[in-house]
Amino acid sequence: MKYDALFKRIKEKAKLVDEKMFELIPEKEPAVLYEAARHYPLAGGKRVRPFVVLTAAEAVGGDPSKALYPAVAIELIHNYSLVHDDIMDMDETRRGRPTVHKLWGINMAILAGDLLFSKAFEAISGADVDAEKKARILETIVRASNELCEGQAMDLEFEKRETVTIEEYMRMISGKTGALFEAAAKVGAIVGTENEEYIGSLARWGRNVGIAFQIWDDVLDLIADEKKLGKPVGSDIRKGKKTLIVAHFFERADERDRERFLRVFGKFAGDVRGRGIIEEDVKAEVMEAIELLKAYGSIDYAASYAKKLIREANESLKILPESEARKDLELLAEFIVERDH
Amino acid sequence: MKYDALFKRIKEKAKLVDEKMFELIPEKEPAVLYEAARHYPLAGGKRVRPFVVLTAAEAVGGDPSKALYPAVAIELIHNYSLVHDDIMDMDETRRGRPTVHKLWGINMAILAGDLLFSKAFEAISGADVDAEKKARILETIVRASNELCEGQAMDLEFEKRETVTIEEYMRMISGKTGALFEAAAKVGAIVGTENEEYIGSLARWGRNVGIAFQIWDDVLDLIADEKKLGKPVGSDIRKGKKTLIVAHFFERADERDRERFLRVFGKFAGDVRGRGIIEEDVKAEVMEAIELLKAYGSIDYAASYAKKLIREANESLKILPESEARKDLELLAEFIVERDH
Repeated sequence: MKYDALFKRIKEKAKLVDEKMFELIPEKEPAVLYEAARHYPLAGGKRVRPFVVLTAAEAVGGDPSKALYPAVAIELIHNYSLVHDDIMDMDETRRGRPTVHKLWGINMAILAGDLLFSKAFEAISGADVDAEKKARILETIVRASNELCEGQAMDLEFEKRETVTIEEYMRMISGKTGALFEAAAKVGAIVGTENEEYIGSLARWGRNVGIAFQIWDDVLDLIADEKKLGKPVGSDIRKGKKTLIVAHFFERADERDRERFLRVFGKFAGDVRGRGIIEEDVKAEVMEAIELLKAYGSIDYAASYAKKLIREANESLKILPESEARKDLELLAEFIVERDH
Repeated sequence: MKYDALFKRIKEKAKLVDEKMFELIPEKEPAVLYEAARHYPLAGGKRVRPFVVLTAAEAVGGDPSKALYPAVAIELIHNYSLVHDDIMDMDETRRGRPTVHKLWGINMAILAGDLLFSKAFEAISGADVDAEKKARILETIVRASNELCEGQAMDLEFEKRETVTIEEYMRMISGKTGALFEAAAKVGAIVGTENEEYIGSLARWGRNVGIAFQIWDDVLDLIADEKKLGKPVGSDIRKGKKTLIVAHFFERADERDRERFLRVFGKFAGDVRGRGIIEEDVKAEVMEAIELLKAYGSIDYAASYAKKLIREANESLKILPESEARKDLELLAEFIVERDH
C-alpha cells in the first residue's frame, strides 16, 4: 500500500522509456545483432534508473519529457553492462531467461553489448535539450561509464582473492553500482534546472541510493525467503562473492572462524549435482556460514549501513521544494532497503 | 620519396595525438585495467585515422589543434574495436605482440575494450569546440560506432557461410572499415568549417578511402612479398576470410573451380604443425588457390576496384581550395593503393 502509487508511476514512466528505447534498437539487419541486443531490454526489468532520471527532472521543476532520451541512455548503459558482466561472470540466466552469451555465443554477446553502449550515446545525441546541456549530460554519463569499467575491473580482481577490506569493497561498489545511479539522478537534474545545489544534491542522493541498493541485495541473498527470492539462500556464499557483509566478517572474525567460513565460501559455485556432492549437505554448510556472519553482526552491519545511506540520501533532497516527484524519490529510496526480495 | 613529406607530417601529428590520448588512459588504478587498455595504443600504429581528422580540419581552413580531441576519440574507437575483434577472431598477435586477451584473458580484454570505448566519448566530451559542434561530432562518431558493430556482426555471420556476394561484402566492409574513416574525415571538417559541401565531400572521401584501404590489404595478402608483409602469403585463404577477391571469384568460377578452391579455403587456420600436415604442402595448395583467383581475374578486379575508389575519393576533394593539407589527403589516399606491404 505504502508504495502502490509509486509503483504505478514507475510503470507509467517505464512505458514511455521503452517506447523511445526500442526505436533505437528496433528489429533490423543484421537481425542476429539486434535480436541479441534487444534480449535483455525485452526481458523486462523495472526501469528504475530511467525512472530516477525522469523524476529527478520533475523534482527540480523541469519538464520530464525533455529527460526521456537521457533516461534511455542510462538504461542502455545498464543493459550493456549486464550483457558484458554476464559473460565475465559466466552467468547462465538473467531475469528468468538464458543470458545473451548462452543464446548467441560470446562473440555476439560482446558485440550486442557494444551496440547497446553505442546506442546509449546515440540516445544522448538525440536528447531534446540545448547543446550546452547535451554536452554536460555527455560528460556526466561518460564519467559514470568509466567508473563502471573501473568498478567491474576491481570486482574481477576480487575474485582471485580470499577476502577484501570494507574500504576496498566500498570503492568497488561505488563505481560498479553507485556511479550509474548518481548519473541517473544528476542527468535528470541537469535537464530540469540550472541550480547547481539541486544538481549536486541529486547526484549525492543517486550515489548513496545506488550503493545501498546493492548492499541490500547482498543482505537479501542471506536472509530472504527462498521462494520470494527465486534462488537458494546464500547463493553468494556458494559463489564466493565478496560483499560488504563478507568484508566486515573478515575484518572481525578470529582465525578459527575465518577458516570455518572459508571451507564453504566459494566452494559450491554453479550446480552441485553430478559432482558427488549432496545438495542437502551444501545447504547445511551454507546455513552454518550464515550463522557465522550473524554471530559477528556482519549482516546487521550491512543492513544498517544501507539504511544509513538511504537516510543520508533523502536528507540531501531536503533542499528541494516539496513535490510529488521529490516524495517519489524518497519513497523509492526507502523501498530499496525495505523490500524483502 | 614521393611520400617522405607526408610520412613526416603523419609522425608529427601522431605525437600530438598520443600526448592527448595517454592523458585519457594514464597509468592508474585499477592498474590491470589501464595496462590492458594501453596495450595496443602503446604498441604503435601509424595513427592514420587521427591524421585524417587533423588534416581534414586544416584542409577546410580550420585550426587543427581544435580537432585534437576528436582525433583522439576516433583513434580510441579504432583501438576498442581491435581489442574486441581480436577476441572474436581468436587472433593471438597484433602489431607483433600478443593480443590483449592472450595477455590478460578474455574478461579483462572485454573490459579494456569497453574502457577505450568509454574514453573515446570522454575525448569528444573534452573537445575544445562550441557545444553545437560537439553535439554534431558526437552524432557523427555514434553513427560510425553503430555501423562498426553492424559490419562486424555481418563479418561474424560470413564465417559460417561458404561464400558471400560482392554486394554483401561491400555492405559489410562499408560498415567495418568505411564508417570510421568517413567519421574521421567528417569530424575534422566539422571542426574546421560550416561549409556543408566541404563536410560532405570529406565524408565521401573518407568512406571510399576506408573501403579501399581494406580491399588493398586483402590484395596484399595474396601478392605481397612474404618478408615485407610479416606473414605467410595467402594467410586469408588459410583462414577462410571472405574478401572482395573471394566474393568475385565465387560469382564467376565454374562448379569445378569453386570446389578446387574450397578444398583449401579455410582449411588451414592457425598453426598447422602438429596436425599431421606438412607446411610445404599447404604452401603449394595455397599457391594453387591463388592461381585460381588470378585465372578469374579476381585479384585484378579487387585491385582495380580499390584504385577506382581512391580516384573517386580524390575527385571529391576537388571542391576544396588547394593547400598542403588537401595535398596530404590526396597523397595518403594514393599511398594506400600503392603500398606493397
